Amino acid sequence: MKIWQKNIEVNKDIETFTVGRDRELDLEMAAFDVLGSLAHVEMLESIGLLTAEELLIVQKELKHIYAEIEAGDFKIENTVEDVHSQVEWLLTQRIGEAGKKIHSGRSRNDQVLVDLKLFFRNRIEEMVHHTSVLFKQLISLSNAHKDKLLPGYTHLQIAMPSSFGLWFGAYAESLVDDLELMLAAWKVCNKNPLGSAAGYGSSFPLNRTMTTNLLGFESMNYNVVYAQMGRGKTERVLAQAMSSVAASLAKLSMDICLFINQNFGFISFPDELTTGSSIMPHKKNPDVFELIRSRCNKIQALPNEIAMMTTNLPSGYHRDLQLLKENLFPAITSLNECLEIATYMLQNIRIKQDILKDKKYAYLFSVEVVNELALKGVPFREAYKIVGETIENGTFVPSTSVNHTHEGSIGNLYNQAIEEMMNKVLSQFKFEQTRAAIQKLLA
Amino acid sequence: MKIWQKNIEVNKDIETFTVGRDRELDLEMAAFDVLGSLAHVEMLESIGLLTAEELLIVQKELKHIYAEIEAGDFKIENTVEDVHSQVEWLLTQRIGEAGKKIHSGRSRNDQVLVDLKLFFRNRIEEMVHHTSVLFKQLISLSNAHKDKLLPGYTHLQIAMPSSFGLWFGAYAESLVDDLELMLAAWKVCNKNPLGSAAGYGSSFPLNRTMTTNLLGFESMNYNVVYAQMGRGKTERVLAQAMSSVAASLAKLSMDICLFINQNFGFISFPDELTTGSSIMPHKKNPDVFELIRSRCNKIQALPNEIAMMTTNLPSGYHRDLQLLKENLFPAITSLNECLEIATYMLQNIRIKQDILKDKKYAYLFSVEVVNELALKGVPFREAYKIVGETIENGTFVPSTSVNHTHEGSIGNLYNQAIEEMMNKVLSQFKFEQTRAAIQKLLA
Amino acid sequence: MKIWQKNIEVNKDIETFTVGRDRELDLEMAAFDVLGSLAHVEMLESIGLLTAEELLIVQKELKHIYAEIEAGDFKIENTVEDVHSQVEWLLTQRIGEAGKKIHSGRSRNDQVLVDLKLFFRNRIEEMVHHTSVLFKQLISLSNAHKDKLLPGYTHLQIAMPSSFGLWFGAYAESLVDDLELMLAAWKVCNKNPLGSAAGYGSSFPLNRTMTTNLLGFESMNYNVVYAQMGRGKTERVLAQAMSSVAASLAKLSMDICLFINQNFGFISFPDELTTGSSIMPHKKNPDVFELIRSRCNKIQALPNEIAMMTTNLPSGYHRDLQLLKENLFPAITSLNECLEIATYMLQNIRIKQDILKDKKYAYLFSVEVVNELALKGVPFREAYKIVGETIENGTFVPSTSVNHTHEGSIGNLYNQAIEEMMNKVLSQFKFEQTRAAIQKLLA
Amino acid sequence: MKIWQKNIEVNKDIETFTVGRDRELDLEMAAFDVLGSLAHVEMLESIGLLTAEELLIVQKELKHIYAEIEAGDFKIENTVEDVHSQVEWLLTQRIGEAGKKIHSGRSRNDQVLVDLKLFFRNRIEEMVHHTSVLFKQLISLSNAHKDKLLPGYTHLQIAMPSSFGLWFGAYAESLVDDLELMLAAWKVCNKNPLGSAAGYGSSFPLNRTMTTNLLGFESMNYNVVYAQMGRGKTERVLAQAMSSVAASLAKLSMDICLFINQNFGFISFPDELTTGSSIMPHKKNPDVFELIRSRCNKIQALPNEIAMMTTNLPSGYHRDLQLLKENLFPAITSLNECLEIATYMLQNIRIKQDILKDKKYAYLFSVEVVNELALKGVPFREAYKIVGETIENGTFVPSTSVNHTHEGSIGNLYNQAIEEMMNKVLSQFKFEQTRAAIQKLLA
Repeated sequence: MKIWQKNIEVNKDIETFTVGRDRELDLEMAAFDVLGSLAHVEMLESIGLLTAEELLIVQKELKHIYAEIEAGDFKIENTVEDVHSQVEWLLTQRIGEAGKKIHSGRSRNDQVLVDLKLFFRNRIEEMVHHTSVLFKQLISLSNAHKDKLLPGYTHLQIAMPSSFGLWFGAYAESLVDDLELMLAAWKVCNKNPLGSAAGYGSSFPLNRTMTTNLLGFESMNYNVVYAQMGRGKTERVLAQAMSSVAASLAKLSMDICLFINQNFGFISFPDELTTGSSIMPHKKNPDVFELIRSRCNKIQALPNEIAMMTTNLPSGYHRDLQLLKENLFPAITSLNECLEIATYMLQNIRIKQDILKDKKYAYLFSVEVVNELALKGVPFREAYKIVGETIENGTFVPSTSVNHTHEGSIGNLYNQAIEEMMNKVLSQFKFEQTRAAIQKLLA
Repeated sequence: MKIWQKNIEVNKDIETFTVGRDRELDLEMAAFDVLGSLAHVEMLESIGLLTAEELLIVQKELKHIYAEIEAGDFKIENTVEDVHSQVEWLLTQRIGEAGKKIHSGRSRNDQVLVDLKLFFRNRIEEMVHHTSVLFKQLISLSNAHKDKLLPGYTHLQIAMPSSFGLWFGAYAESLVDDLELMLAAWKVCNKNPLGSAAGYGSSFPLNRTMTTNLLGFESMNYNVVYAQMGRGKTERVLAQAMSSVAASLAKLSMDICLFINQNFGFISFPDELTTGSSIMPHKKNPDVFELIRSRCNKIQALPNEIAMMTTNLPSGYHRDLQLLKENLFPAITSLNECLEIATYMLQNIRIKQDILKDKKYAYLFSVEVVNELALKGVPFREAYKIVGETIENGTFVPSTSVNHTHEGSIGNLYNQAIEEMMNKVLSQFKFEQTRAAIQKLLA
Repeated sequence: MKIWQKNIEVNKDIETFTVGRDRELDLEMAAFDVLGSLAHVEMLESIGLLTAEELLIVQKELKHIYAEIEAGDFKIENTVEDVHSQVEWLLTQRIGEAGKKIHSGRSRNDQVLVDLKLFFRNRIEEMVHHTSVLFKQLISLSNAHKDKLLPGYTHLQIAMPSSFGLWFGAYAESLVDDLELMLAAWKVCNKNPLGSAAGYGSSFPLNRTMTTNLLGFESMNYNVVYAQMGRGKTERVLAQAMSSVAASLAKLSMDICLFINQNFGFISFPDELTTGSSIMPHKKNPDVFELIRSRCNKIQALPNEIAMMTTNLPSGYHRDLQLLKENLFPAITSLNECLEIATYMLQNIRIKQDILKDKKYAYLFSVEVVNELALKGVPFREAYKIVGETIENGTFVPSTSVNHTHEGSIGNLYNQAIEEMMNKVLSQFKFEQTRAAIQKLLA
Repeated sequence: MKIWQKNIEVNKDIETFTVGRDRELDLEMAAFDVLGSLAHVEMLESIGLLTAEELLIVQKELKHIYAEIEAGDFKIENTVEDVHSQVEWLLTQRIGEAGKKIHSGRSRNDQVLVDLKLFFRNRIEEMVHHTSVLFKQLISLSNAHKDKLLPGYTHLQIAMPSSFGLWFGAYAESLVDDLELMLAAWKVCNKNPLGSAAGYGSSFPLNRTMTTNLLGFESMNYNVVYAQMGRGKTERVLAQAMSSVAASLAKLSMDICLFINQNFGFISFPDELTTGSSIMPHKKNPDVFELIRSRCNKIQALPNEIAMMTTNLPSGYHRDLQLLKENLFPAITSLNECLEIATYMLQNIRIKQDILKDKKYAYLFSVEVVNELALKGVPFREAYKIVGETIENGTFVPSTSVNHTHEGSIGNLYNQAIEEMMNKVLSQFKFEQTRAAIQKLLA
């Protein structure tokens, strides 16, 4: 059943070991394998390696298989080693000879490469979507709670007045920068490796520009040796971008676990969104955010894992690369789940009122008083000294109003500018172009 | 000497421990600290916190200090804890009262933040420059040696014909994608955090848009809490971009160490660029590339280190962040050195001729013969079988000419398209804009 | 179905998110959960929290469940969140009230802790066994091929004569040091955390010494706060020990992939153990070793992942810890598979004869000649110079015999000493003691 | 000046690049290089490669150099590439011909290997010492504050009563397990690689057993190929052991930063040990512990860095290994500093009294009440329900006394058993044996 198989039967244990978890993990790539083949066969016909009739038959059946995949009716059989063999086998079973021809001018290597790029493009679109939904939720919370004050900490010591407006808005803006990295990953993914064959090109007169256009890639991995080198590198770049989103989510989760702690007590969630204990009714374990934090820290470790598995491998394909799927594919799903559930939780967050009225927060306002003096002309370092002395003498009277007016401050969040910055990043992905190409290919 | 110091003398050992390597590492940021202050004071004057006369005096002396730094005449004294205190101390020593006022509306935190961003911008420009020089060297070698064939390996097994044109070109193209990540890092760095004070903004009517323009930033870190969160994140993002360039260099170095090995023997370097042994004259140890590989693998570990040091820290400043400089700053220098010396070495590389004439490479051409049959209409899988049988029967006659014509293949490297792709990425940095702003500030 | 559940129904999505992959992963711990309970109930009876009759009923049914697990007849139902609940639910279903009492003096936290320690002990024993089998295979190959020479490389440059005896033996000895780390992991695992409850102990008069003895632990995690801290730490320590074995295997695999490459050609494997290509009959892809290398590099990244997920968490349980199972459990299985298949492959390795007769290896012997001169009284540096000159003049005549006699050299491998060192390490695990305790508990 | 140098002058830039930071870092190894040579020459004389007279001259001068190193009068000159060349150059300068002979039967490779092992042994002894001092401090604090209660958290939610006795004791016990890993590292370090030459042994009739004894090694790296493989591996194993101590310190620091935060307020330090702010007198920034946390997290990333730099390198020396010193050497110093300063800080820690009297901690005692019921015969799950209902009805009356009696609980810390466990680990290092051997060598 293996295509390279000739006469010798490969030892069963060896096969189990080498196939690994491919049958399970490859399922996520199935639809994209068909898309890659659809582009390839159209190109093959254009250079005379398929007849127009053969093309029609092949296209029809590939679209049929695509529909089966979409419907959840596709699986990789135990006698077949991976998704690529399964699709090819189905095709040959159903349409005969023409099915065998679609492998011309293509190697398993560039077939996997293009499948992965198409798959990653799809998943990046999903992750960007979920990130932008969370972003909107955060902006919305920031606007809604912009007047509610919160202690700001430095060194985890009570330091300066902050606000829920600032706190939510900070994480919104964090996601904007994260998407800059995702955009870089998108650009690296959005180049066509198809036609690089086993990493050294082909003697067939392939038209790589044509498949690039058919699949909606912005450009191609020109150099065929580099196209192959993209395996492992693409994964690492994507994992790095994911780790940036994950780092924002993990940090937000750490803040939430701290703020929901009873010694802080700044926020809470409805009972049904926390887990409790019948004998400790005050206990509202923030399991969801602990798990988001943990999942996201796991994702933060992923780029390193990929680097460890690929570094010091000379150029050219190595079977090592097969295993990169194992943690990366579930990590993509996991990040999407984290983004969705974080959004959902935040829709239900409850904010404590009047936190700063507690007298332990009085000194939060000392810097405000220093600045007032400075604004009246006292050199900053001296104002600092004066207020310090009143505090030591016990004569300090806090000003409890916060008058911050500059860009991005408590009184002037600039959330609209942050939203514009987000939209600017989002607009550069041009998902509609890749989607249009795919729809045309399937039409 | 410490600015927050009041009456209590801090234990000497504690001070040594907390200052750490700052005096040494901060030197790299000195010029950028002055630039940040130049923008800050101009803004302070515009909102009435400095008089026009004070501004002139301060500007003049700051530019003087800048000149001292450029001339190598600046150092951080042992009684001073970091570069920011040193500059402020010099200023106050030399111009008196006005020097004290420049700290108004600014905290040590946002001062460090803006220094780092300016510093990173500068270093990114350097790294991008060195990368583009190496890129040109690789393209030039690719063009020069486009007709020289090389065995292509998969699984480290002899597989298909490749060429030096492909091999050099692959690493050139790799650098293009690496710069996509560097561009993302640039965008994250090119936003102004100044005005975020201790991470919670200021009650002064700061004009952050003005300092953003004065320092040539493309935009700002609006939300002040996010501006502070950028510490650690900016470093991680930059380290990730660096790790991508490093990964390309490390892989190239691995290839070179393998190809210079006598069992391969594809390339060599002049004696003065390798280290040898008088009794093993055949031995040309590729120390430079072993060290590039090692340095670059160290850089590949850097993003993980930064993540480990920052993950699970709640929002707000923590002193932990101070130590991020320790491995990152030397890594920037190290990567620049690797890029330069790799370029230099490649200028001197020697290519072995006629490698594929060795009969152990004959089977490289078997796929070519299969494809010829396929082009004549034989279904691919059958052509494959036929050739396989001739090989087994010993009747296989290799075709030794390679006729690859498609985009990015041996016969059609498409280096010009790769160069265009590189230029497109390079053009998005717009270094000239930031440079112009800095020159204006220093004028 | 959740034990902490009271009146409020937890949102379904939240539940799916929080349960994660526990139902699947926990299966590996099922038998150990029962063992922990067997020890716990015996202790409960001794302090009067169970009657003698209740104990008998509970023990009988727990042993029954243990048998079901061993027979593969146990599964965690979809309505149950983890293995601990499943066992408790089965018990209560079958024996009623007494089943409810076994949770006295125990928390889910220390229950999981002890399950993990018992599970890890079991898996360490397996890993040590597979490692020692591979060790023996390597020693046996080293002895069998002790006279077959091989080029030794430094800087990947041909340097000195080596031998297959040395090469195989080196990896054998490497495993000895790896087991020193595994022994440290074993010691950390072999301490009883049961009785630490939720990490703060219990007001019941537990007898932790008794459960320690019943479960065959060498000692206990005395401090209950530390017992809880062991979660995450135990995993990291174990992963570090595994990573050491993995590093040896990965390095061996790299060597093999290089030596099977046709430019080296030092070793080969029967066709059925490599994967080939019908049109490239010379191609024997070492997929098994590429995958061992990849799996083992993934394992090398594991300690870092665990550190990333646990660092900067304050003391006390956090739900984050639940996810440590996800990559660790499969990694244990994976390492065992790698050890087994590596042993199997090595049983079939084929060694090329007379490698050093190839004239490219002549200079390997230059150092031998220098040493001969030195032994005759010429100062080493001068002997070095003299031979260097004969080589340059082309008058060098290699001595092709290798006369190394010291400990651990080509002519004197000292494999017996290495075996003794291995046995010394192995003897310190005392697996028979823990096994005896478990058998007694199940009797 | 380089020993392998013949006629060709190596390019200056290349030299700067390849020498790197060796001149600076090697200083730490200088004393150990002399020790290695002292053992080597004594052995050389025993096999007739040095005369008795030569031996005496060499020994005398080596001891003289050792004294210079100890006195701080040794440095590596700019014209010399590393410590080994510097020592050899000094020797030859001072005693002439005999100095040249000491390189017989030794390569730069095994010379570095043995220097590193001797150096690591020395530093392990230091780290173990500092760890045991911190251990004693923690035990002493645990005993002193055993009756002071503290809230215990799970999920960072108030959960159960804990105590300072438990909290300090937990970290003490943590260090015991950490030293199990350090012991494994010690065992790996305490084997002699000298005599392995360039990794393939020597044709000289070396007596490796003799140098093993002279240097006080417990045994040797027998197989010479494995001895060379120890480079990189030894460093990784040591870094793993260090990372374990570091993880305990980092976690302790996180706890301290949290507990010193005003929302918790459980502990404090004298003003001179924290850094403050004159206008925020309530602010006591725990900079020392933030920096311990950061340094220790950096150390936690170190094993991964070493793995990344060494993985996938085939066997045999590679120049890559030179760079492992760069982060490892400073990390050793850093960990020692962290251990010392943590001990010093803890000597000055202040504990808040009566923390649990605050009514927000009332529910801490709910589990105690459940257990009381259970002890009276109510099935645990029912007792749980009953108390839960009283809490919901507002009729819950907390018992404020804590009556934990089992091993390792609040009322029965078992610190003596923990100390015994520590002593058992410490006794296995047998530092006195290695120290005695070194003293004899220097006598």
